[in-house]
Amino acid sequence: MGRVTVRRRVTRVRPGADPTERVDTLAVEEPLEVRYGAEVLTVTMRTPGDDVDLVGGWLVAEGVVRTSDDLVSASFCPGLDGDGHQTYNVIEVGLADGIEPRRRSTAMTTSACGVCGAASLDSVVLESPYDLSVDDVVVDPDLLASLPDRLREAQRVFDRTGGLHAAGLFTADGELLCAREDVGRHNAVDKVVGWALREGRLPLRGHVLQVSGRASFELVQKATMAGVPVMAAVSAPSSLAAHLAEERALTLAGFVRAGGFNLYARPERVPAAARR
Amino acid sequence: MGRVTVRRRVTRVRPGADPTERVDTLAVEEPLEVRYGAEVLTVTMRTPGDDVDLVGGWLVAEGVVRTSDDLVSASFCPGLDGDGHQTYNVIEVGLADGIEPRRRSTAMTTSACGVCGAASLDSVVLESPYDLSVDDVVVDPDLLASLPDRLREAQRVFDRTGGLHAAGLFTADGELLCAREDVGRHNAVDKVVGWALREGRLPLRGHVLQVSGRASFELVQKATMAGVPVMAAVSAPSSLAAHLAEERALTLAGFVRAGGFNLYARPERVPAAARR
Repeated sequence: MGRVTVRRRVTRVRPGADPTERVDTLAVEEPLEVRYGAEVLTVTMRTPGDDVDLVGGWLVAEGVVRTSDDLVSASFCPGLDGDGHQTYNVIEVGLADGIEPRRRSTAMTTSACGVCGAASLDSVVLESPYDLSVDDVVVDPDLLASLPDRLREAQRVFDRTGGLHAAGLFTADGELLCAREDVGRHNAVDKVVGWALREGRLPLRGHVLQVSGRASFELVQKATMAGVPVMAAVSAPSSLAAHLAEERALTLAGFVRAGGFNLYARPERVPAAARR
Repeated sequence: MGRVTVRRRVTRVRPGADPTERVDTLAVEEPLEVRYGAEVLTVTMRTPGDDVDLVGGWLVAEGVVRTSDDLVSASFCPGLDGDGHQTYNVIEVGLADGIEPRRRSTAMTTSACGVCGAASLDSVVLESPYDLSVDDVVVDPDLLASLPDRLREAQRVFDRTGGLHAAGLFTADGELLCAREDVGRHNAVDKVVGWALREGRLPLRGHVLQVSGRASFELVQKATMAGVPVMAAVSAPSSLAAHLAEERALTLAGFVRAGGFNLYARPERVPAAARR
């Protein structure tokens, strides 16, 4: 569909020089609406491409589907926009018997006060179907430190736009299985997990998920919902990301770069780090 | 409340050295639930602090409130969690007569196919109450190039955690009026706009909004809903960010740093850039 980047005229301003006009490449951002029957499950701003995987991975993260059998169908809505064009911005999903979409807490009625804090946290924390504590994979620290550079090499669009987050799924031996880019880092992770769902690889025991940005609560939760035992981020984790990682037995590495990294939870899967 | 950062024990791994343990500072991320009566309007993951402003700015971005009179009240829910602690994670809002919260499109029923693309974009694009095209502010290009460094100087927490986005509101003369940090860049902008709402400064005619990360559709929309005529981002804009900026007459600068910047929409407000 060729919509991952667009060309746009920009004015380039540099000190001491006259402004120049040139054509620049931007990462595409468009809304994707996910429908289940007449119901809109979510609208996410994403970079087009691998949209069916994006939806599949999102449904895994929501705790709705676990295997590709649970997701009976996911296809672009055939309707046209006002100009008669197919927009490829709406996907309709079909779920197996007994599989129900998760209704978001937004705009719903909740219980009364007295359980405020619990209510708000409960509305975002999901139970993972997988117990990561039984995953005894070990990852070499030098290999872990090399993953951001290897992910960057696989990023085709970033070099042209400077505007895309990435997620990469690696084996414990450092083989890159799947790399995806998106304007939203959560979407990049969803696309990787959706690929794994389609390939029948869930849960992702023994794998490492490398992400390009920071480690938020949301990304840690997505990793645990897919059964990944090790997540590595180029930048800092948040407090809740580290807390949830510890609680769910996910090894969480931050500030991962060629010069080293920090481990915020479950360091025992990176042996040199545990040797102390 | 002292919850903007937390201390956590981490394992530091560097090549050729034994791992060391030390205590590191992490940016706090916690859910904030916004309630209107018994209804949950949204749950956002944010860094605690300036929460009432966060809610005010979010309601401006949603097109719900325009002045502080519209927002009658916004206060922490007095309830306690299971351990008897006030969590400060739930805010209840009161709206003036005639002001209604915007119900999100998520999980609602939409019209049938044939308008797919329009439906999904319509569900995210909001009309701004302000016409930015009449704002004839001009910003000096050298001043614009200096804003990221000035915003960074104002970031108190980033230096300790490396994990926070920031947004800063400047006058056209370069005076910093308000700077806020958050794990979510949209929250940092909401906190700034909420401050302006409370100060009776909306619409923000003649101002410049500087953000620390990329320029997404969502951030451009928040700027237009607050009436800001110029937005500058340290990194790349997305296609839809540039498109919406052009359509709403917002001057959008990207890759802003001491060495210069690019203008993606409405360059005429940065005079040297328009001289061609």
